[in-house]
Amino acid sequence: MAVGQLSQNELNEIYAFAVDLGRKAGDLLMERVEQRISGGEGDSHKFEEKDNAVDIVTQTDEGEQPSSKNDTKSDLRWRTDFLPDVEVFIRNAIQSKYPSHQFLGEETYAKGQSRDYLIDEQPTWCIDPLDGTVNYTHLFPMFCISIGFIVAHRPVIGVIYAPFTDQLFSACSGRGAWLNEKRRLPLVRNPIPPMPANAPSQCIFSCEWGKDRRDIPDGNMHRKIESFVNMAAEIGGRDGKGGMVHGMRSLGSATLDLAYVAMGTFDIWWEGGCWEWDVAAGIAILLEAGGLVTTANPPENPDTAEIEDVRLGSRLYLAIRPAGPSTTETGRESQERTVREVWRRVRQLSYARPGA
Amino acid sequence: MAVGQLSQNELNEIYAFAVDLGRKAGDLLMERVEQRISGGEGDSHKFEEKDNAVDIVTQTDEGEQPSSKNDTKSDLRWRTDFLPDVEVFIRNAIQSKYPSHQFLGEETYAKGQSRDYLIDEQPTWCIDPLDGTVNYTHLFPMFCISIGFIVAHRPVIGVIYAPFTDQLFSACSGRGAWLNEKRRLPLVRNPIPPMPANAPSQCIFSCEWGKDRRDIPDGNMHRKIESFVNMAAEIGGRDGKGGMVHGMRSLGSATLDLAYVAMGTFDIWWEGGCWEWDVAAGIAILLEAGGLVTTANPPENPDTAEIEDVRLGSRLYLAIRPAGPSTTETGRESQERTVREVWRRVRQLSYARPGA
Repeated sequence: MAVGQLSQNELNEIYAFAVDLGRKAGDLLMERVEQRISGGEGDSHKFEEKDNAVDIVTQTDEGEQPSSKNDTKSDLRWRTDFLPDVEVFIRNAIQSKYPSHQFLGEETYAKGQSRDYLIDEQPTWCIDPLDGTVNYTHLFPMFCISIGFIVAHRPVIGVIYAPFTDQLFSACSGRGAWLNEKRRLPLVRNPIPPMPANAPSQCIFSCEWGKDRRDIPDGNMHRKIESFVNMAAEIGGRDGKGGMVHGMRSLGSATLDLAYVAMGTFDIWWEGGCWEWDVAAGIAILLEAGGLVTTANPPENPDTAEIEDVRLGSRLYLAIRPAGPSTTETGRESQERTVREVWRRVRQLSYARPGA
Repeated sequence: MAVGQLSQNELNEIYAFAVDLGRKAGDLLMERVEQRISGGEGDSHKFEEKDNAVDIVTQTDEGEQPSSKNDTKSDLRWRTDFLPDVEVFIRNAIQSKYPSHQFLGEETYAKGQSRDYLIDEQPTWCIDPLDGTVNYTHLFPMFCISIGFIVAHRPVIGVIYAPFTDQLFSACSGRGAWLNEKRRLPLVRNPIPPMPANAPSQCIFSCEWGKDRRDIPDGNMHRKIESFVNMAAEIGGRDGKGGMVHGMRSLGSATLDLAYVAMGTFDIWWEGGCWEWDVAAGIAILLEAGGLVTTANPPENPDTAEIEDVRLGSRLYLAIRPAGPSTTETGRESQERTVREVWRRVRQLSYARPGA
């Protein structure tokens, strides 16, 4: 299958290159972990806080915004000021192999640019050298390298590598989605189960608290919490909005959330505020596995609104796992039914792009 | 170091036996995972629902409570009716090797017994053949075998094995706590960082939504949510209770939550409703790593109340990661300060034992 101007053979070669690159970049992250564990990092590698306790400063950011919180420095654990170097390593490898391709990386993008949506029709690499930064600084294994390759606005290759547990998720349009290049995703596929008849009940709902913690009555934090509680509460509770999901999970990594939806493990992921590099690779893998990604924000009429593929720059995402047919529905029908059931229970979030 | 009537040599032998047993039992779980992935399980292995969508029926439970929900059966994914067999495998191995030791397992205990606290001074094994059952049925890797060994009410040996990612956490009193028998816990120990000066800020807070989803104004679900929001909200928010934690994480496994606190990864874990088998192994590992475990429920005066070691049967747990000294505090002082800061922000939970 060809994508845009690229043949399947060309895609296959790019895919093999991306997988190799993901592993090498993951090894760079683990080198730092080993240094940290062996005590090889001095105080200069402790991390600092930015404008709130969640964002973590990087070398790049430091140039723009001098730290004013040295007093708390001794409590903090780990600087991530080597991340631009990891991104440069990835970018150099790509630009050397594919000089005509465009490149967008979190660290590059943050460096003084406005965060406009910059991807056009051209083949574009979209990279996060570290997703799950808070996890990484605390050594919780849910951190990863994320490498997405986008053609004509569609993520067609994705590589997500979580080096601490050596879990590599990958996909290439036309080649299937895989865990560690040996288990096809979704894991359960003989047959792939439909979405539950009473979804979101029996579903694992994956959601993140995020960085916006402002205690404003109608702010994003309270809109999220209201939505979470609706999804969690017993059937009949919350004025009929109770979804009684099977489990609520928060990992602290949008990228890995998407990987677990592609695996068939998380049934539903709902989030606002992500950037392209947080989701490009995960969307490529999820789509290739048979999942659905649309907008997190419920339309005016959730029962009848058309369910459109998400726009990559939208910052609002609702993902549903791959689903097979039942005796009464196609897989897609059961996914769309689940989308509507989520939309009925969640609030609109406000994550406009800066300048939008 | 001797514990009760057991010498260190005896403990060492029991520890080696427990580690081996944990791996073997984990392999049994993974055999079922492989069957499930390869499509080797028929419809008879789908799971059923119990009294709500979170508890999952087991063979044992079925005897007591005939299923009345066959209509939803086709949506469900995976029965766990082999779990009693895994527990029997573990129990037989223990009773054959250590016939004088007592044994308490989740599956055995649930079989029609009242859930009184049954552990006495005698050496007792406390087992969960599968913690994170919802994760297991959805194939989310955060499920594990949990094997605890208790002497004179103190968990002194713990083995937690998560077979999907091959992560084994273990500890024996006097021998240290370990990941995969090669990395000492906590991972960062040269030196072990103190708790942050402004904890719970900069901390990862681990918490679970649990099974009690009743939409009752002052019920456990709403008490938990109020507590979660206090921990998450910005400093100054929530009438001064905002804790601005670094991250909120929910894995769906009390046992693995404790393992990650022992690793130094999660700074704080706060939970109610656990049974002995959910926490015995994790507490053994956390205590050996240098952590603190006390009650989740804030006392009348959080600022001055004595911070006592948790009672194993209490069902209410607050765990703090291992902490080293700073220039102004001992590690224990920084842990206790963090306990009080959590107590100031959380509600009391109501998880009395049945009959208590």
